[in-house]
Amino acid sequence: MRVGLFGFGKTGKAAATVLLQSKEADLCWVIRKTTNLQHRSVPEFLGITDDNQGLIFAKDECTFSELFEKQPVDVIIDFSSADAVLEYGPEAASRGISIVTAISAYPESTVTFMKILSEQTRVLWSPNITIGINFLMIAAKVLKSIAPYTDIELIEEHFKNKQEISGTAIKISQSLSLSHEDIKSVRAGGIVGRHEIIFGFPYQTVRLIHESISREAFGTGALFAAKSVLGRENGFYCMDDMLKSYFNIVAYS
Amino acid sequence: MRVGLFGFGKTGKAAATVLLQSKEADLCWVIRKTTNLQHRSVPEFLGITDDNQGLIFAKDECTFSELFEKQPVDVIIDFSSADAVLEYGPEAASRGISIVTAISAYPESTVTFMKILSEQTRVLWSPNITIGINFLMIAAKVLKSIAPYTDIELIEEHFKNKQEISGTAIKISQSLSLSHEDIKSVRAGGIVGRHEIIFGFPYQTVRLIHESISREAFGTGALFAAKSVLGRENGFYCMDDMLKSYFNIVAYS
Amino acid sequence: MRVGLFGFGKTGKAAATVLLQSKEADLCWVIRKTTNLQHRSVPEFLGITDDNQGLIFAKDECTFSELFEKQPVDVIIDFSSADAVLEYGPEAASRGISIVTAISAYPESTVTFMKILSEQTRVLWSPNITIGINFLMIAAKVLKSIAPYTDIELIEEHFKNKQEISGTAIKISQSLSLSHEDIKSVRAGGIVGRHEIIFGFPYQTVRLIHESISREAFGTGALFAAKSVLGRENGFYCMDDMLKSYFNIVAYS
Amino acid sequence: MRVGLFGFGKTGKAAATVLLQSKEADLCWVIRKTTNLQHRSVPEFLGITDDNQGLIFAKDECTFSELFEKQPVDVIIDFSSADAVLEYGPEAASRGISIVTAISAYPESTVTFMKILSEQTRVLWSPNITIGINFLMIAAKVLKSIAPYTDIELIEEHFKNKQEISGTAIKISQSLSLSHEDIKSVRAGGIVGRHEIIFGFPYQTVRLIHESISREAFGTGALFAAKSVLGRENGFYCMDDMLKSYFNIVAYS
Repeated sequence: MRVGLFGFGKTGKAAATVLLQSKEADLCWVIRKTTNLQHRSVPEFLGITDDNQGLIFAKDECTFSELFEKQPVDVIIDFSSADAVLEYGPEAASRGISIVTAISAYPESTVTFMKILSEQTRVLWSPNITIGINFLMIAAKVLKSIAPYTDIELIEEHFKNKQEISGTAIKISQSLSLSHEDIKSVRAGGIVGRHEIIFGFPYQTVRLIHESISREAFGTGALFAAKSVLGRENGFYCMDDMLKSYFNIVAYS
Repeated sequence: MRVGLFGFGKTGKAAATVLLQSKEADLCWVIRKTTNLQHRSVPEFLGITDDNQGLIFAKDECTFSELFEKQPVDVIIDFSSADAVLEYGPEAASRGISIVTAISAYPESTVTFMKILSEQTRVLWSPNITIGINFLMIAAKVLKSIAPYTDIELIEEHFKNKQEISGTAIKISQSLSLSHEDIKSVRAGGIVGRHEIIFGFPYQTVRLIHESISREAFGTGALFAAKSVLGRENGFYCMDDMLKSYFNIVAYS
Repeated sequence: MRVGLFGFGKTGKAAATVLLQSKEADLCWVIRKTTNLQHRSVPEFLGITDDNQGLIFAKDECTFSELFEKQPVDVIIDFSSADAVLEYGPEAASRGISIVTAISAYPESTVTFMKILSEQTRVLWSPNITIGINFLMIAAKVLKSIAPYTDIELIEEHFKNKQEISGTAIKISQSLSLSHEDIKSVRAGGIVGRHEIIFGFPYQTVRLIHESISREAFGTGALFAAKSVLGRENGFYCMDDMLKSYFNIVAYS
Repeated sequence: MRVGLFGFGKTGKAAATVLLQSKEADLCWVIRKTTNLQHRSVPEFLGITDDNQGLIFAKDECTFSELFEKQPVDVIIDFSSADAVLEYGPEAASRGISIVTAISAYPESTVTFMKILSEQTRVLWSPNITIGINFLMIAAKVLKSIAPYTDIELIEEHFKNKQEISGTAIKISQSLSLSHEDIKSVRAGGIVGRHEIIFGFPYQTVRLIHESISREAFGTGALFAAKSVLGRENGFYCMDDMLKSYFNIVAYS
């Protein structure tokens, strides 16, 4: 699987590291906003030994049609910013390049735009693209459907300086029809990220916990999403769609 | 749903308490081995206010055909011992009474016997009949199928005097193809029961935890199993079969 | 150590169970408010085999001077109500009987009253008399003094129907100079009681956790308090005073 | 406080980062084994803005007497290797420079050597120099002294490739007189490091948990040790000695 990466900030770099170390992906190029590091080799910059792999380009100094022609990829992974897909999307979609984007939030109009793109290719959007969080979210929905009157509580823990409520926690609470006020936020020291969903039964308690170790988890998730979406038909997907088939398989085993 | 209960030891009493407090079940009678408490009212004995409900009978002093005729039930819940089903099974099956049994272990021959019974009625057998543990087990299988190379570890904690490895932990380890030696057993003080399945990803950790509060959880599980199995066709079921449909529904939502 | 117990509600009964099972204490009598169970044997009522031990008396039908004379005790353990000490206190103090009370809250005037009593005997008052919670509270204060700029967060979990914030959590937060608003309260199912103090350092996290299994823990704590206070001089004590000496010993080991 | 650092491997770099960011320490120089990075500025190399601070020197190319004369320090922090103190120790001790070393293991003879040095200065040795772990160890000893018959269990969790039992866990088990076999080792994914000491009481459970986020925690601990030891008399210390005074203060508060 040939991959092109948009974004080379902290998370983009972490994703590049995962892609370079994977045997399932070739990282062909990286596009970033600034001209810093232009034409540097990604593996060399990140200190990873890996032949034949990608260079860094500045977005404004490269033409997408030329890049996609000369250095074709199967999938674009996007950790850049909400406006990038407006620029590279049409050219990518017209060539059938799959798009996996992990941007936190898009304006409604951009979502519509991506849905139109998805008539020509596979577009997958997941704001928190880790496997663990998405698994947790579906598993919690299953448990809620089994035991609808169970009390559900949600604790999220992050580093002291994170000021707003965790977006992931908000998404979990929405998917379980909890209210935002029910989220208990702990802010302490350097905690990377921890989400705990508590199901209180009268005589037993179930806890589903996700602990983040480092942002490379987003890279693993994006790689999983890219592999999973490649075999699908054109359409607009989310991470849930990729994971649900596994729940389904179990249901019939 | 009219319920007859076999077994009135610690777990049987806990199950009776749950059944009496539920609006979905009528506990019609309890059969126990000894003649203690014979003809006592179950709600009165347990100190629960509940009209019209069941008396306690000694097994050897009642005739099943007569009991099932005069005080008919839809389902038998069995927390007694491994030989009871041999006695009440044929009469129950011939009348189409469903059987839900939570006996820990049956001889192979009794399992075969129950499978034959299940041609005439629904027989559900689950050694650990709590909803939480069974949910955990299926969810863990799903996560393993999503991330097959993840490291899985299993910790079980129980009170100091529990000498053998938790049977539930062994069942979990088998369902995940772990070896028995991989189970870490903690024995300390009065811990009622705690099972934790750890999924170690390179950059994130997922923990699925079940904590027992009291044995009434078995009653809740048996009640859930009884309700779920009633609508099914004749056959031999386990708790997994009841829960899997919920995983399936999510898969298509 | 000869013990007299005031209070025979849920917690009083649990404390009686612990006292009867301990080799270090003889439970000589129990005083309760109602005349229910009057003159019943405590071990017989609780189903515990134990020779020569205490009867249950109704408060209004016994004279303390006569009781303390005929069935003398070394210590009174009080799990009854806030007004009891006003009645039995003077007679007990004048005889040098130690008083260990676990009443949640006293009016200011009763605290003053007990301080006056403590000129003649040892009076120990601890609203949450478990060893675990009191240890946690002191250990947390130590860690805060070591690392004063660390972020401290407090999570308390209890059963769904507990409506107010845990009094124990409030006491912990006060002893660490946190504000009440900082306490995160989780209410779910049948959780007996769980308190977690989180110390967030920049590069590490310390968690001090107390999990209640059953109310017998109060009995163990009261027994520990009674044994510890007996060797002390007359005075007004709290559970902290009993535990601090252990911190001190370690400090010099 | 002027600090000289020995060692510039992964942990040495993490410690340098903490020292550079602290207002309480000036990092004057770093000595490392190889000549790589020689004469580079530490803050510049680590990307931290900090005036006037330390250069990197290769051990074999600098004379300690000259270095200590020209660029004097109050304390040496040693994250290098077991033989370094043999070389710099005498010159440092004769000048009264304090020594804080976090080397995992020293030969017996080197321990003796350091004890002799400690007649002239303060030498503090702690293999796991984090505040959290050392606090946990003392707190656990206190709790064990309070409740000597409590069941104690120890779980340590680390990344998959860590093959041996955690040295920290072994040290904890020794300090609590547990046997090595009692340590439950979990190896899964990328867990940085987690130690949990479980105290099982009959009716309650206390859990003391330390979670490592990153190796900078060693730097924080070394800085704390350095500050604490500076005011002490000459002698041979461990991290416990620095922390115990805090337990003592609480004991008298």
